[in-house]
Amino acid sequence: MLSPPATELIAKLQRAQLLYTVTDLLGWDEQVNLPPASAGQRAEQLALMAELQHAAASDPRIGALLAELEQPSAPLPAEQRVIVRQARRDYDRVTKLPADFVREKAAHSSHAYHAWADAKKGNDFPGYAPFLEKHLELARREAAYLGREAAPYDYFIDQNDPGMTADVIGAMFAELKRELVPLVRSILQSPVKARTDLLRGCPVEGQRAFLREVTERLGFDYQRGRIDVSLHPFCSGTGSDTRMTTRFNVDEPLDALFSSIHETGHGLYEQGLPAEFVGTGLGMHAGMGVHESQSRLWENQVARGRAFWRCFEPRFREIFAAQTAAVSSDELYLAVNSVMPTLIRVDADEVTYNLHIILRFELEKKLFAGELAVRDLPTAWRAASKELLGLEPANDREGVLQDVHWSGGAFGYFPSYCLGNMMAAQLWYAALAARPALEDDFARGDFSQLLAWLRKNIHSQGRRQDMGALVRSVTGAELSPKALMRYLRERYGALYLG
Amino acid sequence: MLSPPATELIAKLQRAQLLYTVTDLLGWDEQVNLPPASAGQRAEQLALMAELQHAAASDPRIGALLAELEQPSAPLPAEQRVIVRQARRDYDRVTKLPADFVREKAAHSSHAYHAWADAKKGNDFPGYAPFLEKHLELARREAAYLGREAAPYDYFIDQNDPGMTADVIGAMFAELKRELVPLVRSILQSPVKARTDLLRGCPVEGQRAFLREVTERLGFDYQRGRIDVSLHPFCSGTGSDTRMTTRFNVDEPLDALFSSIHETGHGLYEQGLPAEFVGTGLGMHAGMGVHESQSRLWENQVARGRAFWRCFEPRFREIFAAQTAAVSSDELYLAVNSVMPTLIRVDADEVTYNLHIILRFELEKKLFAGELAVRDLPTAWRAASKELLGLEPANDREGVLQDVHWSGGAFGYFPSYCLGNMMAAQLWYAALAARPALEDDFARGDFSQLLAWLRKNIHSQGRRQDMGALVRSVTGAELSPKALMRYLRERYGALYLG
Repeated sequence: MLSPPATELIAKLQRAQLLYTVTDLLGWDEQVNLPPASAGQRAEQLALMAELQHAAASDPRIGALLAELEQPSAPLPAEQRVIVRQARRDYDRVTKLPADFVREKAAHSSHAYHAWADAKKGNDFPGYAPFLEKHLELARREAAYLGREAAPYDYFIDQNDPGMTADVIGAMFAELKRELVPLVRSILQSPVKARTDLLRGCPVEGQRAFLREVTERLGFDYQRGRIDVSLHPFCSGTGSDTRMTTRFNVDEPLDALFSSIHETGHGLYEQGLPAEFVGTGLGMHAGMGVHESQSRLWENQVARGRAFWRCFEPRFREIFAAQTAAVSSDELYLAVNSVMPTLIRVDADEVTYNLHIILRFELEKKLFAGELAVRDLPTAWRAASKELLGLEPANDREGVLQDVHWSGGAFGYFPSYCLGNMMAAQLWYAALAARPALEDDFARGDFSQLLAWLRKNIHSQGRRQDMGALVRSVTGAELSPKALMRYLRERYGALYLG
Repeated sequence: MLSPPATELIAKLQRAQLLYTVTDLLGWDEQVNLPPASAGQRAEQLALMAELQHAAASDPRIGALLAELEQPSAPLPAEQRVIVRQARRDYDRVTKLPADFVREKAAHSSHAYHAWADAKKGNDFPGYAPFLEKHLELARREAAYLGREAAPYDYFIDQNDPGMTADVIGAMFAELKRELVPLVRSILQSPVKARTDLLRGCPVEGQRAFLREVTERLGFDYQRGRIDVSLHPFCSGTGSDTRMTTRFNVDEPLDALFSSIHETGHGLYEQGLPAEFVGTGLGMHAGMGVHESQSRLWENQVARGRAFWRCFEPRFREIFAAQTAAVSSDELYLAVNSVMPTLIRVDADEVTYNLHIILRFELEKKLFAGELAVRDLPTAWRAASKELLGLEPANDREGVLQDVHWSGGAFGYFPSYCLGNMMAAQLWYAALAARPALEDDFARGDFSQLLAWLRKNIHSQGRRQDMGALVRSVTGAELSPKALMRYLRERYGALYLG
């Protein structure tokens, strides 16, 4: 079915992909296993692998094959079109950025990272500002190399979520903000208060056993994956070898559990992508937002729901008998769904998390539009924080300096988190419409129907469509905040505003 | 101090070395972490890395630099001579073996491995014999490519232990056999009998804690290394990131302990090689036999000695209080030094282990000399086993089919184990002569004097000298079985023939 140039192209792409998997494993090992004094050698290994990967991905033969396959005289079958489109995208990015620029950005990212870490420690935004300014300049240059000098922020958004733009996101986030801020206010005024310090002293071994049982039941294939411990949870690898991490705190057993379920959502997506087409548009996730929709769907719509706890609460109580003895089911369920605005994004609950993202998106957008100077960021951050979260940071450490992303030049990345939340809710109602008994399945411990639906509609699709088109074809509606608001109102309304 | 071509050569060698460290980590991860169904991708990753490594190691620029540095008109400083000599050796091997041959050998090794595993399972030597014959043919061809067609077995011995030959080994092993067989016979006739089933039900956590304390005290630097669990213990990596493994059995706590100390000996050697010259003759171990001398010295001369147990027995009893309650110090020490011939090499004690090696060496030598046909191996094995060990295998599974080595074409590898034992004993007496109070140090928990002596005399030397020359300069005597026999007589004579 594949033409000879398409076959050769796939082989070239998969060679680069295989090198990527090696680099990825080195990164996983760095977070999970690396002895402290071995970081120098690891940096050298990663630099060499990056060089080899770049050489494989920019192989001129890929360019020649693409030119051949893109000839209008030879209309391609749809599947090959997907492969060629994505390969062109990747090839352009890897060949149009001059090597000197890539080196300059990498070097600056390293310096900026350390400047950020120092600035955060010393609460010294002015010391970090020049590094951020330089990153913005590099970002404009990068967009220009790819022919996107007119819309550099859109270029970065598109890197993370193909097809998405700042205008489209801006409209959705504005609507979400309008609806979400009052909902949060109502929840906070509710006499119902979740207690999050209910479960103390839960031994790590019990937590480990429980989350392993849960994630396995959700469908994570441990024959092709693992879960380990790292400082920050993540999921790496591909479906052939999917490696998740979590972290344990004896006084916060829900943390390890929910972060593991979140990573399981990412892992299930990777394990469901068509393995034979890994490294091509057919075997590749559809973008960061879609990836996040998978993690969020399992973490929030599924695992914060009543049916999930109907299934797993008895086992949870069995493992943590002493710790849960004085905790009622309702208290436990409320702790799982606590809402409490915080200044720190990574500590936020699923309701207010979206407000943190809107804040960052609005500031990034203004920075790129030239409507906000880097030196004015702290003031703008404080004002936005007050408006969105009702909280004002006492210092920049818990404000504009809290996130690592910008220090690495990762712009246009934050929106994906909230796009993922919106898509997750929209998928949830579509799945429920396709199988109304979904929550009865969950209560019986059967998550296979939902997984099968996601496998068919999302995972097996690879990057055939971008996020917008994918949501449209699976849910019959445009991506929007409506489903997310409906879901939040249903779940949190019932708990807090009942 | 280094000339420009030498500097460039080192950079090229270290690039290949860095790729090797990545491959090595993939291998470690395969043994320690790999999910069962992820083996296919790992094989692809390893094949690609092997290709890249081969390209880096056979870079024609290395050949040009070597030619320049080898010009007789430019006599090199001694250190650069070491680098050039080793680089020539590696470059010739990597460039003189045709790619087709390398592929053929790799493919045959894979087939032969499976044939061996099947044959072992089914006790079917005739089914495996053709694969072994083919390996011998490949081995002769390989030696011929390197200009060693007249002495193919010497070629393989030299691959593992530079400078060593079958004749030199044969003379040493003949002497060792003459002395060792009667010693084993006397020990077996002794009324003193070690009990090896003394320590049952020792929890893994306690074993792990104890061996960690021990190996750290011996000097292993856990800032640049780790210990994990795998099916078979090994040590991989270099001094920048040294990864050992062990395995636990609650009823055999001495197994994990001694295998960890063995791997610690390998690890200490790697951690003591000059890091700035890694990948060159100055930063490379001096051969498999020398490597084994380091593991054996710590495992046997040190950790099976009275002084070591004087230091660690109290802590061992503290951790395993219940399990050791009815065990006397003498019983424990005898268990550490039990002697019992077995048909299986990997289960052998340190005394009879050498006989297993002599058996294999004698058969390999005859195979290469054409004095023994593959089809006659089982008979020859049984006869040799009877002669050396006093035991006759009931079937080939516990005879000629027991080892994996030949199925991978690894000839000339077995002798290193026994050469290492001889060298270890010889180093031990040299170290004792340099510091007579060594065992008093041990009893106090101080192993730093021995380590410093090894660092200075062995580790820091890299591959400046081959095994024979190294032993000569450090001990003042030729490598021989004399020290090993003296050591075995002293330690085991005192215990069993007192």
